Amino acid sequence: MKDNSNLYSKLGVSASKQEVHDAIKDVDKGIYPGAFCKIVPDVSNREDYCSLFHADGAGTKASLAYMYYKETGDLSVFKGVVRDAIVMNTDDILCVGANGPVFLSNTIGRNNKIITGKIISVIINEYSNYSKELSSMGMNVIPCGGETADMGDVVKSLILDATTFTSMKRNDVIDASKINKNDIIIGFASFGMSNYEQEYNSGIGSNGLTLARHGTLCHLYYHKYPECYDASLDEDFVFFGEYELTDKVDELKSSIGKALLSPTRTYTPLILEILNRYREKISGIIHNTGGGQTKVLHFSSGLNYIKNNLFKIPPIFKIIQESSKTSWKEMYQVFNMGHRLEIYCKESLSKDIIRISKKYGVEAQIIGHCEQFSNTNKNHMEITTPYGIFEYE
Amino acid sequence: MKDNSNLYSKLGVSASKQEVHDAIKDVDKGIYPGAFCKIVPDVSNREDYCSLFHADGAGTKASLAYMYYKETGDLSVFKGVVRDAIVMNTDDILCVGANGPVFLSNTIGRNNKIITGKIISVIINEYSNYSKELSSMGMNVIPCGGETADMGDVVKSLILDATTFTSMKRNDVIDASKINKNDIIIGFASFGMSNYEQEYNSGIGSNGLTLARHGTLCHLYYHKYPECYDASLDEDFVFFGEYELTDKVDELKSSIGKALLSPTRTYTPLILEILNRYREKISGIIHNTGGGQTKVLHFSSGLNYIKNNLFKIPPIFKIIQESSKTSWKEMYQVFNMGHRLEIYCKESLSKDIIRISKKYGVEAQIIGHCEQFSNTNKNHMEITTPYGIFEYE
Repeated sequence: MKDNSNLYSKLGVSASKQEVHDAIKDVDKGIYPGAFCKIVPDVSNREDYCSLFHADGAGTKASLAYMYYKETGDLSVFKGVVRDAIVMNTDDILCVGANGPVFLSNTIGRNNKIITGKIISVIINEYSNYSKELSSMGMNVIPCGGETADMGDVVKSLILDATTFTSMKRNDVIDASKINKNDIIIGFASFGMSNYEQEYNSGIGSNGLTLARHGTLCHLYYHKYPECYDASLDEDFVFFGEYELTDKVDELKSSIGKALLSPTRTYTPLILEILNRYREKISGIIHNTGGGQTKVLHFSSGLNYIKNNLFKIPPIFKIIQESSKTSWKEMYQVFNMGHRLEIYCKESLSKDIIRISKKYGVEAQIIGHCEQFSNTNKNHMEITTPYGIFEYE
Repeated sequence: MKDNSNLYSKLGVSASKQEVHDAIKDVDKGIYPGAFCKIVPDVSNREDYCSLFHADGAGTKASLAYMYYKETGDLSVFKGVVRDAIVMNTDDILCVGANGPVFLSNTIGRNNKIITGKIISVIINEYSNYSKELSSMGMNVIPCGGETADMGDVVKSLILDATTFTSMKRNDVIDASKINKNDIIIGFASFGMSNYEQEYNSGIGSNGLTLARHGTLCHLYYHKYPECYDASLDEDFVFFGEYELTDKVDELKSSIGKALLSPTRTYTPLILEILNRYREKISGIIHNTGGGQTKVLHFSSGLNYIKNNLFKIPPIFKIIQESSKTSWKEMYQVFNMGHRLEIYCKESLSKDIIRISKKYGVEAQIIGHCEQFSNTNKNHMEITTPYGIFEYE
């Protein structure tokens, strides 16, 4: 009998990243140690400014794009993973209130026997195109080139990483250490179709893809795509789900493959408008990436984060859970489960902030609130779900 | 009979990167299109300044460090590959005359089943330590954190990338498009022991490691480290050399493994002093990375680069050639073969520039000169070697 507990860890991914947190414990935390991103003194030595240098990527979603492309011939899925790599950066830096101009660099690692020049060309062009799209939303993104490395001995298929650099006024920094017991939590939907997207977004984002791939896709791919999983994994945990990539699923309004590859939604236009009006009144903004709904546990201290009014779970996460048999408690630690961005502020601001979000076609609602937890620095979280109340710390 | 022609390409690496050059042909080249690095307008909008956002990494050398660590238990080799990742950036940006402060971000991709938290800790700490070392040489490097991603389905072992951001005065930019027919070429040794290094440096740098690993290490590792090569490679080309990692080789003053892992020498202290004196008189500086000795073919136009007085070939490259049977012509396209940095300038400066270099314990000499080649934009190169004169274009 297969044991599906701690599934993500069995697949070689640490959701809590405890080892990484341990490794960086002695590393300088920058000038706002409690902020969502590391912030350093200004690149141009201006005393009232500071700089951010931020790195993130599309993770294993790029390998899924490769599989989908092989199955369908659809090259456009590589555009989606470029967006993932960019948005994983821009939406992180929005959390500290940075609004650009943002300088962007990209790193591509590929196995050149399977990732062709044609694919590289689509990828490099999309770094330019999506930078223009974000710029048209008000976040000026300046692509600065990057590096493409052929390294088939290390990269089985494809890696897309992006790095961003920006400067901002110190007075404008949103420092998540200011999140406090009087704050409510507004959640912004990761799914649906905003008025700045051209397609329905499943809400998946760029986190949990290792679990989502193996937990939904069927074992047919075990033999077909040995280049798309770690050969040292137990075969029982490789592509052990129920679906083929092109299987249509009614609730998803698309194939399972397309839904898993749905590009990470940016919150750029609505956050820029919200910052414009309420910047100094916002305690913190959290991007629910690695760690899913529990991300905020790393920020502020001595708080109990009560999340008791989450969005209805988007279909993609239900399908992943049903197909993979991941515990519901773990699902909330790996995936965003419906909202990928949270604003922490006084309740009095919530009505207008929610109104702004809806104007852009992005659902938003108060999903919970903060309470004093204890006299220690530890944080705690309770999430009310259709499957029980889960506690995390 | 095994055919060892175009060996690097058979191993899945393109030395010329033609596909990448094709893919970026329509991408904006920045404000100094002929410079060694892409240069963009200043991050802080100062008209007389410009910014550079640069990305590079340790490539497949990280996978070799992992093998050596498994064989010997020596964790310190991971420090070396961190230096590689950093120096591949800093020495590139030195080529346009940037002298800091330099902001540094790192991206680590790992298979967490084999790359432990202990290894990650060594790596992350070395990003701090080596930044301090470069700062003590006069190039202020500010580590800004980074991202560590567990992605065993894509990364077989370990990837170390680094990204750097800096700003500089436009008047200070060294633009390699100014290299001209009246220039001589000074080469700076990649090997030996400078007075700012603690160990003899083999000169290998961070390029050509895929060929160097497979061409020198013996087939014993084919079965022992399947996580260290592309499973789709022809077995004949995987670890087909003569050596075990810990085999001592007299000429190398170390084991073959240690010599291959010799950290990329930085030219920071001597280049800073040279820039200080002769910045405005230098036509171009070239870092012989991907493309080896032929790198400069991408810069300036209508020139014939005559390289007829190269350093005696360092032992590591002779060993790689003998063991791998790579053609000598290809060797010069993959490896630096003895000097990793070149300054293009009038002959009258050479004496003092060479004197400065030797003061730091780095051998330097005039290795060639430039001539008019044709009335087209094409460049051409002739390298005089002990094995004949090789031509490239």
